[in-house]
Amino acid sequence: MVERMVVVGADAAGMSAASQARRRRRSTSDLEIIAFDRGSYSSYSACGIPYLVGGAVDDVDALIARTPEEFRRDFDIDVRLRREVTAVDLDARTVRVREVDGGDEETVGFDTLMIATGSVPVCPAVPGADATGIHGVQTLGDGVALRDGLAGVRRVVVVGGGYIGLEIAEAMVTRGIDVTVVDQGPAPLRLLDPDMSAMVAEAMTGLGIRLEMGRTVTAFETGADGAVRAVVAGDRRLPADLVVLGIGARPNVALAEEAGITLGPSGGVAVDHRMRTSADGVWAAGDCVESHHLVSRKPVVIALGTHANKQGRVAGINIGGGYATFPGVLGTAVTKLCDLEIARTGLNAHEAAAAGFDHVEAVVESTTRAGYFPGAQPITTKLLAERRSGRLLGGQIIGREGAAKRIDVVATALWHEMTVEAMLNLDLSYAPPFAPVWDPVLIAARKAAEKVERGGV
Amino acid sequence: MVERMVVVGADAAGMSAASQARRRRRSTSDLEIIAFDRGSYSSYSACGIPYLVGGAVDDVDALIARTPEEFRRDFDIDVRLRREVTAVDLDARTVRVREVDGGDEETVGFDTLMIATGSVPVCPAVPGADATGIHGVQTLGDGVALRDGLAGVRRVVVVGGGYIGLEIAEAMVTRGIDVTVVDQGPAPLRLLDPDMSAMVAEAMTGLGIRLEMGRTVTAFETGADGAVRAVVAGDRRLPADLVVLGIGARPNVALAEEAGITLGPSGGVAVDHRMRTSADGVWAAGDCVESHHLVSRKPVVIALGTHANKQGRVAGINIGGGYATFPGVLGTAVTKLCDLEIARTGLNAHEAAAAGFDHVEAVVESTTRAGYFPGAQPITTKLLAERRSGRLLGGQIIGREGAAKRIDVVATALWHEMTVEAMLNLDLSYAPPFAPVWDPVLIAARKAAEKVERGGV
Repeated sequence: MVERMVVVGADAAGMSAASQARRRRRSTSDLEIIAFDRGSYSSYSACGIPYLVGGAVDDVDALIARTPEEFRRDFDIDVRLRREVTAVDLDARTVRVREVDGGDEETVGFDTLMIATGSVPVCPAVPGADATGIHGVQTLGDGVALRDGLAGVRRVVVVGGGYIGLEIAEAMVTRGIDVTVVDQGPAPLRLLDPDMSAMVAEAMTGLGIRLEMGRTVTAFETGADGAVRAVVAGDRRLPADLVVLGIGARPNVALAEEAGITLGPSGGVAVDHRMRTSADGVWAAGDCVESHHLVSRKPVVIALGTHANKQGRVAGINIGGGYATFPGVLGTAVTKLCDLEIARTGLNAHEAAAAGFDHVEAVVESTTRAGYFPGAQPITTKLLAERRSGRLLGGQIIGREGAAKRIDVVATALWHEMTVEAMLNLDLSYAPPFAPVWDPVLIAARKAAEKVERGGV
Repeated sequence: MVERMVVVGADAAGMSAASQARRRRRSTSDLEIIAFDRGSYSSYSACGIPYLVGGAVDDVDALIARTPEEFRRDFDIDVRLRREVTAVDLDARTVRVREVDGGDEETVGFDTLMIATGSVPVCPAVPGADATGIHGVQTLGDGVALRDGLAGVRRVVVVGGGYIGLEIAEAMVTRGIDVTVVDQGPAPLRLLDPDMSAMVAEAMTGLGIRLEMGRTVTAFETGADGAVRAVVAGDRRLPADLVVLGIGARPNVALAEEAGITLGPSGGVAVDHRMRTSADGVWAAGDCVESHHLVSRKPVVIALGTHANKQGRVAGINIGGGYATFPGVLGTAVTKLCDLEIARTGLNAHEAAAAGFDHVEAVVESTTRAGYFPGAQPITTKLLAERRSGRLLGGQIIGREGAAKRIDVVATALWHEMTVEAMLNLDLSYAPPFAPVWDPVLIAARKAAEKVERGGV
């Protein structure tokens, strides 16, 4: 009998899994693969959405890695869009599928189930939250709707000052739209330490983005037409023709939870290092799962395309009969806001304390190239190390052209639990157009190592 | 009694050692430090010389990290330029010092000796090699002399197609000078594999640089005034108003050797992991020493400013009473030729074979940013892995803006003896302005891992 793999969610995690399974089991008479997605697009770059909204990318097709037709032609994978999987019956080994347009339902059997349901945007549960003109930016469909809804818009309020919120804010500025970012925290990008995020706030303000920090959204004011007119945040009323929700997202676990599949303490679907859920023959990957944080050793949900692709690949190899594992995550992230590059990995000061680490910090100002070389740009590098052992705990980088990608060296060092002292001997590349003779990352490591040697002073 | 540290060579290695020793022994009544250099500059960026010659950097002072006055003021280090140390007497614990201008000599005692004599350029032992107009580019003095000798020069021949040779060739093109590079090998940059160096050759030719590969210089033709007029290479006569020697350099070990200090099999001064030579109280670092190659596990001489700084730092910490080690090198190197970025680390195919590794290769074409993102540039990434184990052996990258610094991730992975399979899970940063969702390095690792899994086919 033909075995059937059903994939729920046809984006990065689901389709990586499907493709890898197919690589190992080439014949459709051996393994049939069907992928359902409630949206209108398969396998797209969610991280590209802000650039579609801002206009740096003008063709929505450019964000689509593979269409359903390509999956069918090249991989014999049957991708069915606008089909929502509404229930899983683990005993009967079936999923219930509803057509988004029309509402017809059917029951489809599976042998292997791949859950890649992604995440759902967090929306403040306040009056007016169902007004028109309030946009999420979770799916490519959301992105297209937002972009197409910008005609005539003069004022936008972005709720949430995280990566996506700021990227969308920049997109709005690029389009000449007046934009305000409102956030509960004291500064944008809470994934950075306050000293670093202050630099981001300053740059954002310099771009003409208004920041309303330390404010909680209490209501959306709507007009007679049901469209949003303003965001109310504490004693502020922020007029808005359009609102974007960039507060964050939570793992979309409803389907798994209702099927009786175990969730982890962080709220994501619990998986082992091979991406197996608690249910036999059911796998999960991507934004909906919980990952192991390699520094804090705690379960975390970190929604990133890189993890989704890697986890999906691991699940697919295992489903296909191979062996692969996903060891965990470091929380590496990067973004570019106009010409400001921002990156982080591992634990920030707050997270280090929460994970029980007593740490030292080193912050250094340097340049992306040799100081005397034309085009040298400022770069601020911060490293955190455990006070007692000198073990690297995390890093943050803010700078101009050529700054941020250096975080990958910090991430790779972190992966191997290096001490800041040991990092000093890393044989990194040097030539005047690329770095000072001591790369900024190494200068920061040296300063941190000196603090550790002095007992953390 | 005051202890005295004598440093021979006041550039990266020597002055790093002196500064670190001073950091730990602050008082001149405890430790006196005297550094001698036969040249006219202290602590400069030798790697910046091509940019001085090309005019990207126009102030020679910009290349000097610290002047003798600054060393005296900030570190209580006595730097004496244009003083050549001509002999070391290990029994008497003295060095013989000759004034370059004037020839006066003196004998100076030491308790600790730091040998940082650098390297000397290789010059073909052929007729006419002593002609005027033939320039080395080893020291900042050489660089200034070369730059100042360019007035009226129309045709330059660069002998040697390594990094420095090509950087100088680019500098000449920048100045509108007709330039030919002649080299014995089949392609420039022999540190790369032929498939990669062919790309460099094509780019160099595109810049208008003439390459005369596979040719050995047999003579320098000189005019009646003793100035070079042409380079004779096999059956070719290459007219030249000026010649630059970029063939390479060998460790400058004469002083150490004559003193009876042990040299290693590679020809550099032998040192242990704390940078101690065979002689008690005598240390060495930089271009003149032999290093341990962490992949081949063989002794090598690799003249790079990064190593010089690191080794000098380690020696200085140890001399100052601390404890530090230098584990070895990977041979990481990077250069930029116009807008072409070129980098390598670890072993290339030839070196892997010589070290006894049976290897597989993966070469991938990708982009520096998400393919759809404005400014995405081509990048070719090559990784070598051991066939049997999948252990990473080396990497090479050629591409445009944003390509080359990725070699640092390969270097850090190599440092930890990662397999290409294990590299796939590295939590590297991703956002569309910085990388495709699978970074080019990871795409190459994936392709290599697939080859290893298939048994190397």
